[in-house]
Amino acid sequence: MAPPGQDPFVYALSSNSAWAGYKGHQNPDFFSRLTSGQAPDILWLGCSDSRCPETTILGLQPGDVFVHRNIANIISPTDINTAAVIEYAVVQLRVKHVVLCGHTVCGGPTAVLGDASVGGVLDIWLTPMRALRDAHAEELDSISSEDKQRAVNRLAELNVEAGVRVLMANAAIREAVRDRGLQVHGTLFDMATGRVRDLGLGTAKMDKGRGAVPEVGGVVRGRHAQLVFGGDGAAGMRAF
Amino acid sequence: MAPPGQDPFVYALSSNSAWAGYKGHQNPDFFSRLTSGQAPDILWLGCSDSRCPETTILGLQPGDVFVHRNIANIISPTDINTAAVIEYAVVQLRVKHVVLCGHTVCGGPTAVLGDASVGGVLDIWLTPMRALRDAHAEELDSISSEDKQRAVNRLAELNVEAGVRVLMANAAIREAVRDRGLQVHGTLFDMATGRVRDLGLGTAKMDKGRGAVPEVGGVVRGRHAQLVFGGDGAAGMRAF
Amino acid sequence: MAPPGQDPFVYALSSNSAWAGYKGHQNPDFFSRLTSGQAPDILWLGCSDSRCPETTILGLQPGDVFVHRNIANIISPTDINTAAVIEYAVVQLRVKHVVLCGHTVCGGPTAVLGDASVGGVLDIWLTPMRALRDAHAEELDSISSEDKQRAVNRLAELNVEAGVRVLMANAAIREAVRDRGLQVHGTLFDMATGRVRDLGLGTAKMDKGRGAVPEVGGVVRGRHAQLVFGGDGAAGMRAF
Amino acid sequence: MAPPGQDPFVYALSSNSAWAGYKGHQNPDFFSRLTSGQAPDILWLGCSDSRCPETTILGLQPGDVFVHRNIANIISPTDINTAAVIEYAVVQLRVKHVVLCGHTVCGGPTAVLGDASVGGVLDIWLTPMRALRDAHAEELDSISSEDKQRAVNRLAELNVEAGVRVLMANAAIREAVRDRGLQVHGTLFDMATGRVRDLGLGTAKMDKGRGAVPEVGGVVRGRHAQLVFGGDGAAGMRAF
Repeated sequence: MAPPGQDPFVYALSSNSAWAGYKGHQNPDFFSRLTSGQAPDILWLGCSDSRCPETTILGLQPGDVFVHRNIANIISPTDINTAAVIEYAVVQLRVKHVVLCGHTVCGGPTAVLGDASVGGVLDIWLTPMRALRDAHAEELDSISSEDKQRAVNRLAELNVEAGVRVLMANAAIREAVRDRGLQVHGTLFDMATGRVRDLGLGTAKMDKGRGAVPEVGGVVRGRHAQLVFGGDGAAGMRAF
Repeated sequence: MAPPGQDPFVYALSSNSAWAGYKGHQNPDFFSRLTSGQAPDILWLGCSDSRCPETTILGLQPGDVFVHRNIANIISPTDINTAAVIEYAVVQLRVKHVVLCGHTVCGGPTAVLGDASVGGVLDIWLTPMRALRDAHAEELDSISSEDKQRAVNRLAELNVEAGVRVLMANAAIREAVRDRGLQVHGTLFDMATGRVRDLGLGTAKMDKGRGAVPEVGGVVRGRHAQLVFGGDGAAGMRAF
Repeated sequence: MAPPGQDPFVYALSSNSAWAGYKGHQNPDFFSRLTSGQAPDILWLGCSDSRCPETTILGLQPGDVFVHRNIANIISPTDINTAAVIEYAVVQLRVKHVVLCGHTVCGGPTAVLGDASVGGVLDIWLTPMRALRDAHAEELDSISSEDKQRAVNRLAELNVEAGVRVLMANAAIREAVRDRGLQVHGTLFDMATGRVRDLGLGTAKMDKGRGAVPEVGGVVRGRHAQLVFGGDGAAGMRAF
Repeated sequence: MAPPGQDPFVYALSSNSAWAGYKGHQNPDFFSRLTSGQAPDILWLGCSDSRCPETTILGLQPGDVFVHRNIANIISPTDINTAAVIEYAVVQLRVKHVVLCGHTVCGGPTAVLGDASVGGVLDIWLTPMRALRDAHAEELDSISSEDKQRAVNRLAELNVEAGVRVLMANAAIREAVRDRGLQVHGTLFDMATGRVRDLGLGTAKMDKGRGAVPEVGGVVRGRHAQLVFGGDGAAGMRAF
């Protein structure tokens, strides 16, 4: 944050300049390597929240993570902005991992659980989360009566689950999962500890279900036996 | 990047854990302060490119910058994803600065100048940039004949200009510019140097035009004389 | 259709001119009344299909039905185009009925059941229908083995059901249902007979469930007891 | 409109039934031919306004016109709903004409010229029209001082012009214009007369410019002279 009395934009530019000077000093090749292209392994789909800068919290570097961040990391199946990012990352850059990351203390679930209208565009944007709250009203009400913040975090988790299901239904992702083993993960950033927790969803869930259910069941008829959407994975797809 | 042979997702999680441990050690209050809320001064609208992690390149910290990143940092006036981010940042969080940031060596302008179809959704998403290329075909062709990369960077710059015009037409932004002095900036991240350059667009341009044109001219009839969209500023709005 | 050898656009303009002449002759006040404003009772959300012109098949007149038509009458919760139509019709024009209408022999379900990729943007647009197919794979496969066309029509019906659930979660619609008795209907246009069939969804379903479940518990806290989302209605909302 | 005291939805269903009975009587093959498929010549992009039912005002029949209707017939380059309709109509159905149709006495321009905020989602949806108003403030103010309604209609016309430019930049349309002579038209429905007026935009404008530039051939091919959108057409692209 800018020191008191200093303009935050001016401060950010001077801070950038200091970073660039330091980085170039530390590693003289750094920027010339950056200009030669990108080959990130990870696509990060996260929240716009200022407290979740993916590269920083993952302890990684410029060039490591391709990124889309929006309000409450909502993955809407027909959103063209998100779809364009996914297509570029999965088809063109051929990332190996898609990581959807929600976080605790998120403003989206807080607004939705408070049930107040939050303004025109946000009301529409948050519709999927409101539907999710209704679908899990009993559980959320019961948690909320004991601890409001825990209900907020539980809805954030449910939102990641729903988002992962949407990702698993995306045509480009399906193809890459089947053809080259792309992995899809659902995670939660716990602000109280700074840790990103793997929720074991997406392709992980699909793999786990494999032993139990040897049948495809018509969801995705992939060319490789291990790609069946069985067990929990099938439910995931179906609950959409 | 993950060391050779190591899974990039597993590596990212362990790297996150190391970061969290270090951060908490360095500043024991860090995460408890994070959980208490966010009050960022800056909304960053940037590219999904893995080489442009805003908080890292600005040398800032979690909590400082609210973020939306999409393919080629295109600001489309009716995109609900972008609009929801702007509304939340400007109306709810009351950020002081909106910073649109393009970058050199960007894949979007490269694709558009190459004129190859890049796939279904991306073709639609990049339509505004293709129109921009057509509108500036003469200038871009002339640059391109000497130096292709410079034409790519020039189109990236034109794209920021166009995006700033869209931002200046957004209802929530207009109101905040008028009522509480919100500033809108257009910038370009030069990968060869690591520096973010201020292009002097948006509210800066508006201010510069002030002396020259004392008349509002019907664009935005604000309550404060200094908010006229005159001189270059008016042209900005008008060229949309 | 234009007679053979005639340009369809030129023919359409001349046909329009003939219609206007006839209409004005038949009812000299017709066009002057049109210019004085609109007060439609019905918002129609239907398919772009050329065979479903709502005003024609309903036997109604210009001024009677406010309209949005898109590919496969998909109601996507965060689609701004659809949301803007709903907001204008429900909040500004205060229509009394929202009618979502699918139809038999629809190209959307046909494409989705064929499981072929249909192109970039359509693939994304049809994602919700593909998820619906997966969620009902067993039923659809069983029907399809006997009669492919019947499976297409069943998926069209499921798509209307899903769309009505999205409509019932829309903030503007919820408020109008609660405050002024707006009705929401799901229907199917059967091309073989020309009849629009009421599927008994939306507010009709909600009413039916009333007797069974008197308490909602936080889904919609309306002012009128009869507007609870109980019984089947509640399930409707929850299955989103 | 439903007779006083009658439920508009119930009335619409009974009116549909009467229409179906009449139509089947008049032409016993009508509905069986409908079920066999659609082959419309025209894609209509029009306003949701209840007074503009395309098939009715064009004096045409079910099966003749493929349709997308939204608020104020705004063509936004990255709107996925509109883009999906265009792709299906142009690529799959191979329509011969794309007709964008605005109309007089339209609520969109009226709201925008009044400069009142019209609500969250509509504010965003109407942003392109607001920018258009700003870009033509002088002309519109001057007309408005004499005749407000004429300024509304002029803005409706400017909106069609802008929309046609967006259509001419759409990749699927460009390809079809080049490869198979698809025509793009801008029109205005005058409610006072019931007539649809051809504004001479789109491919018509391109053709007119052809004399000046000997080759149109292929809309955009490469970096050279043949890249011009001849005559007025070039200006069209540039003003985007």
